[in-house]
Amino acid sequence: MKRKLRMGMVGGGLTSFIGPVHRKAAGIDGEIELVCGAFSVVPGESKQTGEALYLNPKRVYETYQEMFEIEKNMPPDQRIDFVSVVTPNHVHFGPSKMALESGFHVIVEKPIAFSLEEAKTLQKVVAKTGLILGLTHTYTGYPLVKEARNMVATGKLGKIRKVFVEYPQGWLSTLLEGTGNMQASWRTDPKQSGMGGAIGDIGTHAANLAEYITGSNITEVCAMLNAVVKGRKLDDDASMLIKFDNGATGVLMATQVAAGEENNLNIRVYGEKGGLEWKQEDPNTMIVKWLGKPKEIIRAGQSYLSDEAKAFTRTPAGHPEGYLEAFANIYRAFGKAVRDYKPGKKINAAKYDFPDVEDGVRGMNFVQTAVKSGNSTRKWTKLK
Amino acid sequence: MKRKLRMGMVGGGLTSFIGPVHRKAAGIDGEIELVCGAFSVVPGESKQTGEALYLNPKRVYETYQEMFEIEKNMPPDQRIDFVSVVTPNHVHFGPSKMALESGFHVIVEKPIAFSLEEAKTLQKVVAKTGLILGLTHTYTGYPLVKEARNMVATGKLGKIRKVFVEYPQGWLSTLLEGTGNMQASWRTDPKQSGMGGAIGDIGTHAANLAEYITGSNITEVCAMLNAVVKGRKLDDDASMLIKFDNGATGVLMATQVAAGEENNLNIRVYGEKGGLEWKQEDPNTMIVKWLGKPKEIIRAGQSYLSDEAKAFTRTPAGHPEGYLEAFANIYRAFGKAVRDYKPGKKINAAKYDFPDVEDGVRGMNFVQTAVKSGNSTRKWTKLK
Amino acid sequence: MKRKLRMGMVGGGLTSFIGPVHRKAAGIDGEIELVCGAFSVVPGESKQTGEALYLNPKRVYETYQEMFEIEKNMPPDQRIDFVSVVTPNHVHFGPSKMALESGFHVIVEKPIAFSLEEAKTLQKVVAKTGLILGLTHTYTGYPLVKEARNMVATGKLGKIRKVFVEYPQGWLSTLLEGTGNMQASWRTDPKQSGMGGAIGDIGTHAANLAEYITGSNITEVCAMLNAVVKGRKLDDDASMLIKFDNGATGVLMATQVAAGEENNLNIRVYGEKGGLEWKQEDPNTMIVKWLGKPKEIIRAGQSYLSDEAKAFTRTPAGHPEGYLEAFANIYRAFGKAVRDYKPGKKINAAKYDFPDVEDGVRGMNFVQTAVKSGNSTRKWTKLK
Amino acid sequence: MKRKLRMGMVGGGLTSFIGPVHRKAAGIDGEIELVCGAFSVVPGESKQTGEALYLNPKRVYETYQEMFEIEKNMPPDQRIDFVSVVTPNHVHFGPSKMALESGFHVIVEKPIAFSLEEAKTLQKVVAKTGLILGLTHTYTGYPLVKEARNMVATGKLGKIRKVFVEYPQGWLSTLLEGTGNMQASWRTDPKQSGMGGAIGDIGTHAANLAEYITGSNITEVCAMLNAVVKGRKLDDDASMLIKFDNGATGVLMATQVAAGEENNLNIRVYGEKGGLEWKQEDPNTMIVKWLGKPKEIIRAGQSYLSDEAKAFTRTPAGHPEGYLEAFANIYRAFGKAVRDYKPGKKINAAKYDFPDVEDGVRGMNFVQTAVKSGNSTRKWTKLK
Repeated sequence: MKRKLRMGMVGGGLTSFIGPVHRKAAGIDGEIELVCGAFSVVPGESKQTGEALYLNPKRVYETYQEMFEIEKNMPPDQRIDFVSVVTPNHVHFGPSKMALESGFHVIVEKPIAFSLEEAKTLQKVVAKTGLILGLTHTYTGYPLVKEARNMVATGKLGKIRKVFVEYPQGWLSTLLEGTGNMQASWRTDPKQSGMGGAIGDIGTHAANLAEYITGSNITEVCAMLNAVVKGRKLDDDASMLIKFDNGATGVLMATQVAAGEENNLNIRVYGEKGGLEWKQEDPNTMIVKWLGKPKEIIRAGQSYLSDEAKAFTRTPAGHPEGYLEAFANIYRAFGKAVRDYKPGKKINAAKYDFPDVEDGVRGMNFVQTAVKSGNSTRKWTKLK
Repeated sequence: MKRKLRMGMVGGGLTSFIGPVHRKAAGIDGEIELVCGAFSVVPGESKQTGEALYLNPKRVYETYQEMFEIEKNMPPDQRIDFVSVVTPNHVHFGPSKMALESGFHVIVEKPIAFSLEEAKTLQKVVAKTGLILGLTHTYTGYPLVKEARNMVATGKLGKIRKVFVEYPQGWLSTLLEGTGNMQASWRTDPKQSGMGGAIGDIGTHAANLAEYITGSNITEVCAMLNAVVKGRKLDDDASMLIKFDNGATGVLMATQVAAGEENNLNIRVYGEKGGLEWKQEDPNTMIVKWLGKPKEIIRAGQSYLSDEAKAFTRTPAGHPEGYLEAFANIYRAFGKAVRDYKPGKKINAAKYDFPDVEDGVRGMNFVQTAVKSGNSTRKWTKLK
Repeated sequence: MKRKLRMGMVGGGLTSFIGPVHRKAAGIDGEIELVCGAFSVVPGESKQTGEALYLNPKRVYETYQEMFEIEKNMPPDQRIDFVSVVTPNHVHFGPSKMALESGFHVIVEKPIAFSLEEAKTLQKVVAKTGLILGLTHTYTGYPLVKEARNMVATGKLGKIRKVFVEYPQGWLSTLLEGTGNMQASWRTDPKQSGMGGAIGDIGTHAANLAEYITGSNITEVCAMLNAVVKGRKLDDDASMLIKFDNGATGVLMATQVAAGEENNLNIRVYGEKGGLEWKQEDPNTMIVKWLGKPKEIIRAGQSYLSDEAKAFTRTPAGHPEGYLEAFANIYRAFGKAVRDYKPGKKINAAKYDFPDVEDGVRGMNFVQTAVKSGNSTRKWTKLK
Repeated sequence: MKRKLRMGMVGGGLTSFIGPVHRKAAGIDGEIELVCGAFSVVPGESKQTGEALYLNPKRVYETYQEMFEIEKNMPPDQRIDFVSVVTPNHVHFGPSKMALESGFHVIVEKPIAFSLEEAKTLQKVVAKTGLILGLTHTYTGYPLVKEARNMVATGKLGKIRKVFVEYPQGWLSTLLEGTGNMQASWRTDPKQSGMGGAIGDIGTHAANLAEYITGSNITEVCAMLNAVVKGRKLDDDASMLIKFDNGATGVLMATQVAAGEENNLNIRVYGEKGGLEWKQEDPNTMIVKWLGKPKEIIRAGQSYLSDEAKAFTRTPAGHPEGYLEAFANIYRAFGKAVRDYKPGKKINAAKYDFPDVEDGVRGMNFVQTAVKSGNSTRKWTKLK
């Protein structure tokens, strides 16, 4: 396909946080161009956004329904290849489902949907249409996360015993949703965010990261969920003991009331022979710890990395990459799959290395189980 | 008292790890001199140790019973002032009790005893004799731990909400006790170590540190204890959710199978306004995090520290202090109390800032509760 | 101008390191599109590159002369707005000069030219045409570098006394140019690189960074230049004492034989009241040191930063930005200037905050002076 | 010798900074006891100091002359074995010389003397008496400095090419000597400190560290010395280009006006195969950098260290050691030599691994050459 992929966007209006992130991430490699969008339900905002993005005004829509209706009837040499859904959580399901049913591949911001039920419905739609659904669990896009996964998979650390994954933020240390802050408002509102607060917003990233790196699934959790800030409607703080299907155990923490923290997702994994430690805020460095030998500092962009990590690096060692590049890696892998897609032939997301609808269902299951465990007096609650 | 304090030691023979640590820590300030000891139950080892320490052979004893018997009858200008007990856990109680009953103050390596019952007995003996019992919870001896405690106490962080305390080590990642390693052997043997493995050996340090800094007590735990290494008789890995009496919650982790970790005790405490982070392996630095302001790097030895921290520093900023100095701070505070002691007048350990018999009882209670919780299917178990 | 800016590129063929960097950096904000290029002098490579970039084959040229000739005669609604020159050093001057003379703005990879004479010629062409010339001194594009500059400019550190700037790399620790490595070959070849090796390739970045942050000019240097690796034709290692026009002094180091270093550009600036420290490999963190107060950790993306720094950040704190984003910031500022350009009205690069032809001349002057000093037995050599 | 070594002290009164450091360092291992001293020339202060140290009042002297006179005539089973000289610089020579001539070994705070001439005189006295003179260049006492030396000596880094050694402090950023501060007053006074300010006080440490680790001698310097703070009589800031006798080159920096710095001595050494980096403020960690392989984190106390490093460690990895322990390592090595001393048999300080009179002479030579170079318009000045 000797042209850029054509992307349409749902959500991502002028006040959006994640919309511009998706656009930059999609554009960075020069493989994808944004050609249309239904950017906002606020009257006029979609138009304004389209103008700011230099889009053809004819392809800036007021609703996603309108967009899919028109775009699917465009000639193949103009029609979009896929849709990027970057709305708040409760509007992930609708456009994703309709996009698939209109014949478009979909890449959707996490969480995949508002509830486990919606997620499972999407799973069925994906199965039925045979189309590709990518999920932007950004943090698995970092090259050193892929190196970590590779180290575990190739047995370098030995059998995995312990996993400690944390996602502390501090930005919800006060009742920010009471001040008109838009990001805080929808993320702490059960009607827009879903049944999980911190556990859904960031806990799912932590769980996804742990499962991605270890190649193992969380099977049971023992959770404590708190709404620490007075007046908050959803949990803003979660800690849990966890068990994995390979016998490993660990701790998962996700909190938005760790005052002074920024976006400090981090993970430590220990096996029989050694351990690794990675922090999202310093993503180009990974510490590997060994029994009886010096610790090693693994660095992104180095020649000694695995092919799996190298495939997702844009600059040589010492030229730091960041969040946008990690995000772009999800788009890079998803985009390759879209280019390779042929009707009737199932795309294997794992091969391309991007999160898909299965990860989305797992994520929603995780949130639901964590909330259930948080309300239980029993120690352990199983993931279904 | 215009002379050095005179110390006798029980345990700490030539193969001991902690014995030399106590001796160096006691000696560093030039306020205490070791004058006698019953260093080992291995025949001849006490004598050898005494020689290596240049002690008067007449004051090197084969048993602690003999030592106390003879020393208590010495003239006041020769008699020891206090006893340092540095034996394995199961031999803490006997010499500590007898020393007190012989009229000597006692400083004892943690845990204070083999069981909660023994600890409570010691509590009574202390109350009855009115003598001083110090407990070497070393890590609270670091100046920046005292600064942290002071920051919380003076409200700088606001009301405390979250506490994350960890003590990962890796040295028991293999079945080291099967190789003749003495340290590993007694620490993993329920008959010498007690009912707790990692939870007793290092988990108590973590709990003590969290309670010391926050000025709050742990009230409930939800624990997962594992014997990860095949063939091990005691837990070598523990994680638990915790609640404090001030309403804060958190996570405590203590593990000896985190391969590649050394002695990485660390704590993070978050309040309404900010948080702090301290790591034992880099003890002269504390990071303080603020809502909406730059993080700060607090450094030991600086003029801006609280008097409570300054009182326990020996060198100016940039001249690092370490484990021995922290250990020496326990001896410094204990020694001051011993100098101030007058029969019939109770010494307030908190004022001098050293851990005492109450901390010992709390520690044993913590271990017992953690083990109980680990065996329970209920989520929460209360500390009595 | 309600459209993307149109960019043409000279150099940046398939084997280029810096070409793709420029393209990603130019594209990330969605404000610039690459529409044409003369990518290589290797027959066929320009065409191949154009195909890989999905360009219209008609606008892929074999030579830059051809490109400028054809493009300048295109209708205004198709014609490029500016040219990006990303060739090796000895081919910076030719296309830059011709592009300007063809009526195109220019953004050129550093160093601006092969020699000080060429640089001065370009300075005259810029003055004559009134067009804009931007220079990609990437590292001043980082938000925290701008914050550092702002801290100095607003007097927060007091009068500046000391500047230590370093640029250690290790990749030329062996005679890599003898192995066919293309990057090493041209960078160590006086015919392609110019009179300076390390001093030109990376020393200029260090000098530029120091001058940018301090707002002061280097006036005298005392340099030691070495060709450490046997067989190398140009210096691969340079250290020098430096003096600034504000009375500050310091040290500048640039070496490519610091085995094991990646791209560790870093700077420390000390004034009467405090100092700052920034490292390119960890670009989102700056340490500020104060007399008698805790050090502070300044972080990119935070609300407390100056407007000058905030203007160049794309993600909130804790979502790391890197080299490509810093590079994109040069393009962002340059692009704004191009959009604002009106014939006959001079653009003030400092206001837009991008390096321009003056920085280019200063850089060439620095290299020439450093080489002269390196060959001198006198201690100090003045920059003209 | 089945007893502690007996030490007498000259200087180190109640207001001294370095006196208590020497006493703690000497005492930490239980191998040395302080038995007498002439602590101050301030009337009465020596007596007060002796009381605070619980010394026998009969062995507390008003002058060092009196002390040596009396002590040398004491019976062998009471007489001191050696003298520790901890006075300000201008009083190093007198007591050191007289102590040697009275038959006592000497350990003296650096710099060894006030001038190169004095140092050479001491060198002759040492040669004549055959006694031991140790010099407390503290920083070479750190275990990882010894590991670094060992790595270079065993060729692990290949031939050494570059050395960057720095000693930034900030405490003299203001005219502290004008405020009555005693430490500042004598250190900035040419009559007490000598011809070098920062270059003598801390530059010598930097030079000594570089020579110790590389096993090479500095042969030429090109120095810039500044008295940055108005009114200061000696240099408070020095930077220099340096050459070594093995062909390596580098930079040495020592400044006391780097506002906000504490005691940040650090060194980087690069060879053909890799480099190492060590920082005094984080002394238990050394980073080793390799061409094409991950960097390594070398940690004090680890089993993988060289015997040379292990011999100077008191605690296992993860139990940090600091400045006092490094200082104690000089005393440990010196003390062993004193125990092994036999009249007529020369002690090889290098074998015991402590700095001696040769290091002292080299240090004074370095200061004198640096000052000379600072005043010269020629680039290079040779060390004699």
